[in-house]
Amino acid sequence: MSLLDFDADQLAAFAAEVRQDYDVLKDKDLKLDLTRGKPAAEQLDLADALLELPGKGNHHAADGTDVRNYGNLAGLADVRGIWAELLGVELEQIYAGDSSSLNIMFDLVSWAYAFGTNDSERPWKDEETVKWICPVPGYDRHFTITEKFGFEMISVPMLEDGPDLNAIQELVKDPQVKGMWVVPVFSNPTGVTTSEEIARGLAEMETAAPDFRIVWDNAYAVHTLTDEFPPVHDVLGFAEAAGNPNRFWYLTSTSKITHAGAGVSFFASSVDNLDWYKSVASVRGIGPNKVNQLAHARYFGDADGVREVMRKHADILAPKFTKVLEILEERLGQYEVARWTEPKGGYFISLDVIDGTASRVVELAKEAGIALTGAGSSFPLKQDPNNRNIRLAPSLPPVAEVTAAMDGVATCVLLAAVEKLGA
Amino acid sequence: MSLLDFDADQLAAFAAEVRQDYDVLKDKDLKLDLTRGKPAAEQLDLADALLELPGKGNHHAADGTDVRNYGNLAGLADVRGIWAELLGVELEQIYAGDSSSLNIMFDLVSWAYAFGTNDSERPWKDEETVKWICPVPGYDRHFTITEKFGFEMISVPMLEDGPDLNAIQELVKDPQVKGMWVVPVFSNPTGVTTSEEIARGLAEMETAAPDFRIVWDNAYAVHTLTDEFPPVHDVLGFAEAAGNPNRFWYLTSTSKITHAGAGVSFFASSVDNLDWYKSVASVRGIGPNKVNQLAHARYFGDADGVREVMRKHADILAPKFTKVLEILEERLGQYEVARWTEPKGGYFISLDVIDGTASRVVELAKEAGIALTGAGSSFPLKQDPNNRNIRLAPSLPPVAEVTAAMDGVATCVLLAAVEKLGA
Repeated sequence: MSLLDFDADQLAAFAAEVRQDYDVLKDKDLKLDLTRGKPAAEQLDLADALLELPGKGNHHAADGTDVRNYGNLAGLADVRGIWAELLGVELEQIYAGDSSSLNIMFDLVSWAYAFGTNDSERPWKDEETVKWICPVPGYDRHFTITEKFGFEMISVPMLEDGPDLNAIQELVKDPQVKGMWVVPVFSNPTGVTTSEEIARGLAEMETAAPDFRIVWDNAYAVHTLTDEFPPVHDVLGFAEAAGNPNRFWYLTSTSKITHAGAGVSFFASSVDNLDWYKSVASVRGIGPNKVNQLAHARYFGDADGVREVMRKHADILAPKFTKVLEILEERLGQYEVARWTEPKGGYFISLDVIDGTASRVVELAKEAGIALTGAGSSFPLKQDPNNRNIRLAPSLPPVAEVTAAMDGVATCVLLAAVEKLGA
Repeated sequence: MSLLDFDADQLAAFAAEVRQDYDVLKDKDLKLDLTRGKPAAEQLDLADALLELPGKGNHHAADGTDVRNYGNLAGLADVRGIWAELLGVELEQIYAGDSSSLNIMFDLVSWAYAFGTNDSERPWKDEETVKWICPVPGYDRHFTITEKFGFEMISVPMLEDGPDLNAIQELVKDPQVKGMWVVPVFSNPTGVTTSEEIARGLAEMETAAPDFRIVWDNAYAVHTLTDEFPPVHDVLGFAEAAGNPNRFWYLTSTSKITHAGAGVSFFASSVDNLDWYKSVASVRGIGPNKVNQLAHARYFGDADGVREVMRKHADILAPKFTKVLEILEERLGQYEVARWTEPKGGYFISLDVIDGTASRVVELAKEAGIALTGAGSSFPLKQDPNNRNIRLAPSLPPVAEVTAAMDGVATCVLLAAVEKLGA
């Protein structure tokens, strides 16, 4: 029975029960953390071979280069080739950089700001305003970058098959709209995967700005929670065929495949875009850590090697996601006070609670020793207009802790709901 | 006898001899390279233990952190502590980043340009002009950064005890002069080490710009060619004592200590400057490769471990430098057609030939199969006003090749000289 259908007496009785549950929860003195999408130690163990790779005597790339010396801004073909296959792009369309694709995304925006892109009439800093499309809920660190550069962020809904294409097609008629963020597969935090139709629409749409860019942050390209891997849409091909070859800045990395922060990042794009990137990157530095890139190439062997590792990650992660969904259904399902996503991959579950109560839920959880990502984090300027969304990140703690934390969160959701209903 | 004292007959005879030498040289079909300051394979071998470090089961920093997971923008204290000791700074005054200090220097300039420094009245992009002091000859990649951002570069001479302090003290009276480059120890390419007096002068001088910064690129801090290590001047301390605590952006790295491009970089500065850096760096990314930082900490052990490694580098490098100097003296000394530096450390020898002939020497060498760094490379915009300076980089080739290459270069210097003298 929905909480909204309770009569006053029922609600009062239920509220008393929930308050008691919350007191019991607080007495447990928990110290649990569901804030960030960090891999668990058990996942990190999967890549421990890397701690002694490439190994003494193994310092030559397949082309004979000594990886211990300077050079090669594009990164080692040995590891670029593996990701070219995984992403379905050509070798010359992909660079391998150091650990984090976030770094590359920041640099792309920063260099477009200071110098303009290869298609810009002027540096973005010299535009009166730069507007940027932000599918919501989305990745907080994306929004922080565009906030830092003072761009005007325009939210569009993340729908079940990807960002709202109709809304975007309208927005890009404005030449000041220079780009958009999107996590196309197992999106942070909804788990939504952008369909081929939406991907094609984004590749093909007309934009008033000649230098419009889509940051296609495919962070979870192979991060399945099931036996199936998500389809790889050839957005670079779609865009080229539509006469928009430079539309996508396509990123991914090994951050949640090997060791977080100690892996390899990848930037795939048109050759023109890569040449533009190189024209600044070659001023910024000489080249990436090729020793680490060789180690990664040896660790994986090939694209199937990556998939094999990802199946092992899924074995560790899936039970945690299952547990979260079970508890949400069991504790909240009948009351209709919340909706949540049921992702088939990625690192997050997006939980919508009764409008206006998300920040209260986070506060109640905090008081009970359960750290949740701040309410609003998945929106530009950290402002959720409905104050309803909470991002759950169950990857790091062991299943027992995930269970305890989610049971506590459910209690907080109910308590915030009865408070909101005045009980 | 100086070439300038030769009478016409002597000069003609000498020119004929040199031309014959040059023909013999060309017939050798050499393929030699003295262009860049790359370590030799034998040097890279010194660090091969790193190819299997930190080793399985070794993934915890001294403070217990699992280095395989996200976090810690400042870098691991394990390796920061070693460089804090080498540079004579406090642990909280130094960050450890990924491979290249060049990357950090670019970011510092880029972020001051986009956002302004912690002491700026406005972002440098909003200044009418930004002027930048460039000691010459200097490091080409420095100048390329300030060129990229459109700064007006003002050359000052690199004297025997460091950059020309008197000239700099005059220049900084202009509030548009926002900073300067300097390699304070075994400078690229002269090998000059800045004296304590000059270092203090730079720390203490009054500048019209409140946000004036000295990029103190101590790339060769421990890169001796002798038994002695250079003194470490506490420029952060000098500056703080003089009331200019934020004057220095102090950089160094392991690039020519372990594996080039695959090491650890360091940024030392005032806590205020580091906080400012962090305010942007934390938008750009989550943290550096801590696995690699732990590997480096284990490899060195402590500051003495670094010095021990550097003595082994010196054993490999010193004979190459000695050979270059021997050949220069033997082949050119008597004719007074060139001057060169005799560095006690670093990676370069700076060769000055007869004014107006540097580019011709490089061209002649190229025709004979000897690649030299382009004439003018050590000057802003690659323009040597006297067309006299050539940077020699003898580190990479084996001694036999260095010998062959330098013998050829000497012939080219003489040929360009006799051409210049009309013979």
